[in-house]
Amino acid sequence: MILEVADLRITPERQAEFDAAIRQGVETVISHAKGFSGYEVQRCIETPGRYLLMIRWQTLENHTVDFRGGPLFPQWRAIVGPFFAQPPAVEHFELVAKSA
Amino acid sequence: MILEVADLRITPERQAEFDAAIRQGVETVISHAKGFSGYEVQRCIETPGRYLLMIRWQTLENHTVDFRGGPLFPQWRAIVGPFFAQPPAVEHFELVAKSA
Repeated sequence: MILEVADLRITPERQAEFDAAIRQGVETVISHAKGFSGYEVQRCIETPGRYLLMIRWQTLENHTVDFRGGPLFPQWRAIVGPFFAQPPAVEHFELVAKSA
Repeated sequence: MILEVADLRITPERQAEFDAAIRQGVETVISHAKGFSGYEVQRCIETPGRYLLMIRWQTLENHTVDFRGGPLFPQWRAIVGPFFAQPPAVEHFELVAKSA
């Protein structure tokens, strides 16, 4: 299992609209991707317009190859892309430790 | 409930040692803080030496006031501070949506 963390920046004035759009995008598109294993969207308190989209994938390639190279990616970007004030910064992570 | 996300950068050569130290620091120090409600440590795949420490707090002030202003903070920093290659970047987040 790996964690994708996408650091997103949108126009702060559109936050309420984006809250609904990103949820819709994950639930109607990304959740159908191979290896998708759960997600969380978090809105930043200190920096208006900053969001973290965190998605758990069974393997790194489920995101980087299967999803990004497949037909769901353009559907997802059509929903959320228009909100982005700059390109998302995306990296992947492996679990080191967590609460019991 | 709010989420603290600390973006940490350490010397990559010390990752194995840091994996143990950060876990020890959270479990023996931060987990005793008022309002602490769970944590996760994630190690970046693409950027060696990058970690995300994510801690759930009951309120923002439990972290920014109670923890940072209390006796546990210097105990925590004594354990993990020596590993830091640069000051941590810390912000707080509110949940927008997540998996059912």
